[in-house]
Amino acid sequence: MRDPRDRRLSRVAGPSSLVIFGVTGDLSRKKLMPAVYDLANRGLLPPSFALVGFARRQWEDEDFAAEVKESVQAHARTPFDEAVWNQLMDGIRFVQGEFDDDDAFNRLKETLEELDADRGTRGNHAFYLSIPPKAFDLVCRQLSKHGLAQSTPGHWRRVVIEKPFGHDLESARALNDVVESVFPPDSVFRIDHYLGKETVQNLLALRFANQLFEPLWNANYVDHVQITMAEDIGTGGRAGYYDGVGAARDVIQNHLLQLLALTAMEEPISFNAEDLRAEKEKVLAAVKLPEDLSTHSARGQFAGGWQGGEKVLGYLEEEGIPADSTTETYAAVRLDINTRRWSGVPFYLRTGKRLGRRVTEIAVVFKKAPNLLFTDHSDDEFGQNAVVIRVQPDEGVTIRFGSKVPGTQMEVRDVTMDFGYGHAFTESSPEAYERLILDVLLGEPPLFPRHQEVELSWKILDPFEKFWATEGKQPESYPPGSWGPASADELMNRDGRSWRRP
Amino acid sequence: MRDPRDRRLSRVAGPSSLVIFGVTGDLSRKKLMPAVYDLANRGLLPPSFALVGFARRQWEDEDFAAEVKESVQAHARTPFDEAVWNQLMDGIRFVQGEFDDDDAFNRLKETLEELDADRGTRGNHAFYLSIPPKAFDLVCRQLSKHGLAQSTPGHWRRVVIEKPFGHDLESARALNDVVESVFPPDSVFRIDHYLGKETVQNLLALRFANQLFEPLWNANYVDHVQITMAEDIGTGGRAGYYDGVGAARDVIQNHLLQLLALTAMEEPISFNAEDLRAEKEKVLAAVKLPEDLSTHSARGQFAGGWQGGEKVLGYLEEEGIPADSTTETYAAVRLDINTRRWSGVPFYLRTGKRLGRRVTEIAVVFKKAPNLLFTDHSDDEFGQNAVVIRVQPDEGVTIRFGSKVPGTQMEVRDVTMDFGYGHAFTESSPEAYERLILDVLLGEPPLFPRHQEVELSWKILDPFEKFWATEGKQPESYPPGSWGPASADELMNRDGRSWRRP
Repeated sequence: MRDPRDRRLSRVAGPSSLVIFGVTGDLSRKKLMPAVYDLANRGLLPPSFALVGFARRQWEDEDFAAEVKESVQAHARTPFDEAVWNQLMDGIRFVQGEFDDDDAFNRLKETLEELDADRGTRGNHAFYLSIPPKAFDLVCRQLSKHGLAQSTPGHWRRVVIEKPFGHDLESARALNDVVESVFPPDSVFRIDHYLGKETVQNLLALRFANQLFEPLWNANYVDHVQITMAEDIGTGGRAGYYDGVGAARDVIQNHLLQLLALTAMEEPISFNAEDLRAEKEKVLAAVKLPEDLSTHSARGQFAGGWQGGEKVLGYLEEEGIPADSTTETYAAVRLDINTRRWSGVPFYLRTGKRLGRRVTEIAVVFKKAPNLLFTDHSDDEFGQNAVVIRVQPDEGVTIRFGSKVPGTQMEVRDVTMDFGYGHAFTESSPEAYERLILDVLLGEPPLFPRHQEVELSWKILDPFEKFWATEGKQPESYPPGSWGPASADELMNRDGRSWRRP
Repeated sequence: MRDPRDRRLSRVAGPSSLVIFGVTGDLSRKKLMPAVYDLANRGLLPPSFALVGFARRQWEDEDFAAEVKESVQAHARTPFDEAVWNQLMDGIRFVQGEFDDDDAFNRLKETLEELDADRGTRGNHAFYLSIPPKAFDLVCRQLSKHGLAQSTPGHWRRVVIEKPFGHDLESARALNDVVESVFPPDSVFRIDHYLGKETVQNLLALRFANQLFEPLWNANYVDHVQITMAEDIGTGGRAGYYDGVGAARDVIQNHLLQLLALTAMEEPISFNAEDLRAEKEKVLAAVKLPEDLSTHSARGQFAGGWQGGEKVLGYLEEEGIPADSTTETYAAVRLDINTRRWSGVPFYLRTGKRLGRRVTEIAVVFKKAPNLLFTDHSDDEFGQNAVVIRVQPDEGVTIRFGSKVPGTQMEVRDVTMDFGYGHAFTESSPEAYERLILDVLLGEPPLFPRHQEVELSWKILDPFEKFWATEGKQPESYPPGSWGPASADELMNRDGRSWRRP
């Protein structure tokens, strides 16, 4: 079932292995292992490719291989193919051990050397740390100590880390120092899986491969931008992690500021990592915080109640959440950007759990046309053109514009036109992790933020977090299935605007 | 079955009658009489409204009423309603006579006076000349002679004429002189039914009620514009009229130049007739003819052959067409517009019969973005954004833009997004003639060209016609179901462009 297009359109990874720490975790089982198989199935992995698991579990290679097979059959995007599987299975190894166990890292080293010699991975190894951030330090030091972290000419070593990249600027810097004291910056791949999604990359194509949008993409024509990531669920199984972190750190600092950067940045000279990151960092560095943090931000916590015909618990009633938790499950902020392109154009970012609908979108809302020629509209239903980039669930682009109502003299009403990414192409979209793992193996870092970017993002969020902490208030309650607390609407109304109902 | 929206959104005509000359013709039966009923059904005609037929046929009022009923039941857009019909039927009259018969015009006068007295039409009468242009002169003079043409304070008289408005500048002027020697210019309503279509009016809303399009609608961003009206049929029953007229006079002079004017004009101060017409005339007056008429125009005549699985006759084989006719059934021209907005942006107009598909559209094709960042494309499949205003058959707007191909590094391919006028609104679109007849009764002339506009259009077309006549060549043959003669493609290719395949 290989799609020959894939090989034509994407480069194939060179000889290499992927070593996953925390291989018994959810992410590994549901996303990473299936993505590795899908890449193999698409012909994008070399025959020599090896997959190495490292965990505490008392497994042999075969046990791990059986686990991988099970997760592939349950979660892979592409059909199961025996031949592909057998090829992949031959390269599967398991190393049992604790992170502080030197013997285990010695065994890992031996395993990789054997793979280099027997299977041909040629000394190229990527270490995927699918583990709690507090263990990063230890694992990085162990890799270094056992001579696994150092690239040598012709043989690369890379490390992949997942968010959270710290919980404020200071801790992010400490974390970056730990990782980059072992791996050089070019070898550190920070995964924000949102950036592996097609639509995010499509945003670059939309903006820069077209003549229709870029001329309008500035303060002359844009009134404001809304970036939304809404979930309709609660904390799910993540209560333990989530409490004390909250919506702003969990989503705004990484996903939403990344989307802001891609939406607002100047055109890069190329899509090479360096050029692309330079533009993202420039625009993040130009972000201006509101003078009054209290009126330009909002925090909420979902209450219990009915949502979609189902009775759901409030955040404070969820298992594992302290009854007096002040963690917010909704956060909204207004940011401005101090560039000629965006001067006077606010960017409104919001995210929350238990909202009306699961949706991630970027809405570029244009100024009203001077519509003196048309029937007068006292309501504000009519009016503002918008280009909405839908990131999920149904990736695509929506354009809202005004059209004449049939049979009338000259009444204009807003209509929309849609482009559905999934409908337009026969190619199916790879999972974000496919793209990201392949990019790690190819050594193509454009979609991964470097430490400067992570730190710039914390620099933007920290003042809000500090303000909220100083304020010491319980976040404002909002009903499940609503669109957040009243203060979020007030934030917009004060500016004479309102949130889209996506 | 009245739609209360209609009364809210459109003004209702005042007391008046519509007098149709040529009431036994096709247009009257299939379009005018059904449109009158539909207007009545929508509550847009006053209770006093009267419909008067004038023709040679030996009919009484009842015979004519029966004819109207039959045509309404066969062709009306809205459902048949006895109460509405009875109200309308009460005001139906028929006047029998020839155009040169003074007694007949006396009877017409008496009929209208009776209607004024008994039904309350209050001296307001519109004369719809659904007759051959050569009879305009006679009928206008008769109306004048019998005191029917003169408006008096509080009582209006109007005349409605259908294209063709002459066959060149000179004859158009003569015709305008005839009509306007009897009716003042404000009382002359020239019908181009394309301008009654919703999408044409929607073009004004699209351009001027939105912020998204107008900033791009100029030579900075637009590469060229293509205006197409393609038919998939031959001359149908119109052979006698069509031969000697041809595609350019039949379609380019009126429909396509009107669409050009609406696409290219500056924003009018208001949609009042005077302001709107002033802008249309300005842009028509700014049209610049190509220096070399031979390379910037194309003429064709369809051959016989197979079209859509059916054997069809060539133009010269059709009934009523002389075997040596040089009348073109396809015409294409390039025009430029000498304004700052459009300098260097060619407008390509084409029309033809027996083409691949029935379609009328305006395609605004944008310059390529400097797509240096994207995968190199040697083919020209990729590239130019376009906003396509579809006039028929499925009215709406299509936007073509580039989007990233899923699963690839950064390959961009053209995709489209559509807005379907018929799907977006629950309101169904009135027929063009409904709108136009209502506008005549309301005295709202914005959609009707005045004589200056008609003459400007002939001024543009005449040089092409003269050139073709001087050339004296047989138009180039093209197969039925194709997109016209090879010379039409060459016209475009010479400019480094190509026609859209709609």
